[in-house]
Amino acid sequence: MAAVAALATSSSAYPDILTPAGARAAIRDGLHTGPTAGMAPGFVQGNLAILPRDLAEDFLRFAVANPKPCPLVAVSEPGAFRIPSLGADLDVRTDVPRYRVWQDGVIVDEPTDLHRHWRDDLVTFVIGCSYSFESALMEDGIEIRHISRGCAVPMYRTSIQTTPAGRLRGPLVVSMRPMSPANAIRAIQITGRLPNVHGAPVHLGRPDLIGIADLSRPDYGDPVPVGPDEIPVFWACGVTPQAVIEAARPPFCITHYPGSMIVTDLRNARLAVS
Amino acid sequence: MAAVAALATSSSAYPDILTPAGARAAIRDGLHTGPTAGMAPGFVQGNLAILPRDLAEDFLRFAVANPKPCPLVAVSEPGAFRIPSLGADLDVRTDVPRYRVWQDGVIVDEPTDLHRHWRDDLVTFVIGCSYSFESALMEDGIEIRHISRGCAVPMYRTSIQTTPAGRLRGPLVVSMRPMSPANAIRAIQITGRLPNVHGAPVHLGRPDLIGIADLSRPDYGDPVPVGPDEIPVFWACGVTPQAVIEAARPPFCITHYPGSMIVTDLRNARLAVS
Repeated sequence: MAAVAALATSSSAYPDILTPAGARAAIRDGLHTGPTAGMAPGFVQGNLAILPRDLAEDFLRFAVANPKPCPLVAVSEPGAFRIPSLGADLDVRTDVPRYRVWQDGVIVDEPTDLHRHWRDDLVTFVIGCSYSFESALMEDGIEIRHISRGCAVPMYRTSIQTTPAGRLRGPLVVSMRPMSPANAIRAIQITGRLPNVHGAPVHLGRPDLIGIADLSRPDYGDPVPVGPDEIPVFWACGVTPQAVIEAARPPFCITHYPGSMIVTDLRNARLAVS
Repeated sequence: MAAVAALATSSSAYPDILTPAGARAAIRDGLHTGPTAGMAPGFVQGNLAILPRDLAEDFLRFAVANPKPCPLVAVSEPGAFRIPSLGADLDVRTDVPRYRVWQDGVIVDEPTDLHRHWRDDLVTFVIGCSYSFESALMEDGIEIRHISRGCAVPMYRTSIQTTPAGRLRGPLVVSMRPMSPANAIRAIQITGRLPNVHGAPVHLGRPDLIGIADLSRPDYGDPVPVGPDEIPVFWACGVTPQAVIEAARPPFCITHYPGSMIVTDLRNARLAVS
């Protein structure tokens, strides 16, 4: 974040990373290679899954069957590295700070662009992420614990199974945010209107009922304290599709590097359904 | 309910109590003097508070300051016994099965009409009731425990204070419905869209945080069991304004008899905001 702030204010010669096109340009030009949190505030950032066409068919059905962990913001044409609905200039090969390239379920490269890895059979999925709903919650005055503490959100594998599709199957992964009951109720109302970025929580109050034995030991991310007057609130998490793809051990696929998202022209505020 | 069903099907000469106008006519003609649950399904039923003009001023401010326990569906002109927005034929003096007449905070009469008690300075408040949101929850497939068990909803005085207005002040009274966490989340989304019938819950999961020591001992209504996989969900309750008025011990006022509501032409489905 410090680097982002410095970049944002250092010189007018640099692109304005407070805008989506400026953020993408800074990333594309190699001026920014870290996390995208704080870039283009107010605009949707997405998780990325880039899959060969045959696995993409399975994944599209998986996403439709599991919209809470896997809300689709956009799907590219096969082989297309542009997704005009997310930004006229957007190029999925260059506009993410860092990628992960997987072969047979193993990370084989973490490049800053995909020129060496691009193939004409690849389909790109942009999946909604919790940055958008966290922004809406904070605008309502609700504290987001892991943001206050400057750490990653705690995430847990649950005993809830996703609906399988083809080769893709696995447990639902959830993120957890502690809140007072009154704030939990507000948060449900607010995020329920944002189905494209995970929507309403899937669970609250009783981690044991979804197979979470110890909140202080998340499977991903960092633990955060739950106050004596608070309850844990659980949202379906975008790590779910990544874990499901990883478990399927496809011969080849690409994801974003954790925290390094794709920045789009879509406004968070326009995600709300009525 | 058995009497209601019999009345509904016994003869075409009787008014059709499945319609709001028919229900009101049956009540007005003395054919129905019991609870209104099950009459005119799909239409809004309301709590009633009929207050002398000077206390009505306080109450109007109280309702505006406390919309969750006191959602106003309609307010009459002073002295008017008709509220055309709720039904062209509606007469608040005759269209409730049974009333309670209070003097100095004490019930002095429980008549089936108000002809002997009506005064030209009375203002009628129709206040949204939970029948409407329970109907919406059941349509979503959510069990309402006290309805399944055929008893009254459990209600509790809380440590949450309402916002005072003039002579009116007192604790928030809540109703409780046990649900699975997943159903609680759905219920928050559904009732959050119904602000005119108490809206989203005010609390969930931790009765101790709002001053409720023992769920099995409600202050009003009947206890219901909370399952091991369930959490208690608390909504602001229309008993709150009644208790507040009672505590103010006004020289004169009128309310409905518990369970004997006023049936209106408003459709439950039209209450939902987007």
